[in-house]
Amino acid sequence: KVLVALVFYVLLNILAAYLFVLIEKHPDNNYTDEWFIFNLEKKFLSSHNNCLSTEDRRFLLKEVVVAYKAHLVNNSHSHPDWSLNNALLLSFSIASTIGYGTVVPNTPGGKVFSLTLAFIFIPFTGLLAAKMGAILAYYVKKSCRSIFGSSPRTKYIGVLVTFLLGLILYVVMPTMLLRFVGNEENWDFLDCLYCVIITLTTIGFGDYVPGLKEKLHSFNFFVDPSSHGGIFTTMTVIIWVVAGLAWFATIINLIGNVLSKRAKE
Amino acid sequence: KVLVALVFYVLLNILAAYLFVLIEKHPDNNYTDEWFIFNLEKKFLSSHNNCLSTEDRRFLLKEVVVAYKAHLVNNSHSHPDWSLNNALLLSFSIASTIGYGTVVPNTPGGKVFSLTLAFIFIPFTGLLAAKMGAILAYYVKKSCRSIFGSSPRTKYIGVLVTFLLGLILYVVMPTMLLRFVGNEENWDFLDCLYCVIITLTTIGFGDYVPGLKEKLHSFNFFVDPSSHGGIFTTMTVIIWVVAGLAWFATIINLIGNVLSKRAKE
Ligand SMILES: [K+]
Ligand SMILES: [K+]
Repeated sequence: KVLVALVFYVLLNILAAYLFVLIEKHPDNNYTDEWFIFNLEKKFLSSHNNCLSTEDRRFLLKEVVVAYKAHLVNNSHSHPDWSLNNALLLSFSIASTIGYGTVVPNTPGGKVFSLTLAFIFIPFTGLLAAKMGAILAYYVKKSCRSIFGSSPRTKYIGVLVTFLLGLILYVVMPTMLLRFVGNEENWDFLDCLYCVIITLTTIGFGDYVPGLKEKLHSFNFFVDPSSHGGIFTTMTVIIWVVAGLAWFATIINLIGNVLSKRAKE
Repeated sequence: KVLVALVFYVLLNILAAYLFVLIEKHPDNNYTDEWFIFNLEKKFLSSHNNCLSTEDRRFLLKEVVVAYKAHLVNNSHSHPDWSLNNALLLSFSIASTIGYGTVVPNTPGGKVFSLTLAFIFIPFTGLLAAKMGAILAYYVKKSCRSIFGSSPRTKYIGVLVTFLLGLILYVVMPTMLLRFVGNEENWDFLDCLYCVIITLTTIGFGDYVPGLKEKLHSFNFFVDPSSHGGIFTTMTVIIWVVAGLAWFATIINLIGNVLSKRAKE
């Protein structure tokens, strides 16, 4: 039954992704690099001749950087590549509240759709994550009982095993996958762990996105910066996060309980 | 007592921000625009003469855009401006799991510190948000009782009033503030609402950050793109989000309950 819900959830996300593509790919919405370059050229290069002094060149380059930064900071990651995979990452980053921000809606229609999605998909993610979290706890409990019998000690062992299994499944394995299987060659071990924790906490800065094929500080000028991982990576991320979210929330709640007990003392 | 906790929370965030500044401002960590421009110049402009053809110019500009995009996507928002205010925004965006991503740690030390913070600050935010959410509900209940007496209908009125008051305090007012008081002149009404909801859901894409002084599609080349709002804006955001988080979570939970009831039927 949970599996059906998970499949339904993934299909719903894909449907939302498809709608995002439809909304955002409207021919009027072409804030592309070409448009930016055209404006830049018009504004700066036409006033100079084709020959630039060193100062002129530096000035121009600084302008480009600042302008592009401003563009990225605001209308921000104005993502021209509205592939279904990128749209799926957007849909899931809304549903999970991770909000990486590497793909964002740019049109009013896309924004309204995002807000609507949030109100339906966020509670759905919560429900599904709780169900999937319960599965791990249930099977651990069952196994522990059949091994240790039902004593109070068994309960503690069960909690400990659930914690350790979760740690391996949701933290250690994804970190290893990112480090050794993923295309993120330039991410060191800390980067991979950071990516995993920033994702599971749903902070989702967007500086490290699983599957994003870019290299850190590479300045490899010919790599397509919008190259997220393929649909397989996105699916893996969705299942991993939905499965691990409740486990992680339990740990955060435990720390919260300890904190509030300390505060009361 | 909740006020004391709130002040303590803000002070703790400021302390964390100060530590971020200390960690990240190390003289070795200078991945600045100047460094980028220097490398770019070395790689591209030295091979050409100072005179560029139209094709050369276009090619160069495209390179800059792609390179800068890659830089931003990865080491990403490598933020040279480690002011206390920006660091405070980072600390709070970890604590609230909003994770705007406009300021992120760039050093291994900063990353480790971020992860440590997450485990302590996220539960603390949850506890404080719950307490602050309870205050509104408590006062509404008290007022409703003194007006309508204690009947089952009073309870429903109380829930409705809490919902409406929350809607005004946490959604309508912040949207209006962003639209008419904030410096975000080029944000239309939808943009402001979008910013508010994306923040309260803790999605936090980072495309619209309250107080970020940039203009949308302005290509105003001389505006500093790292100009977040002042410390007053950051404080307002912290108090607003912490106060509104529990109210918003209640609504999301309500929708979740409706969804799971529908699913069971
Ligand atoms: K987030
Ligand atoms: K985020």
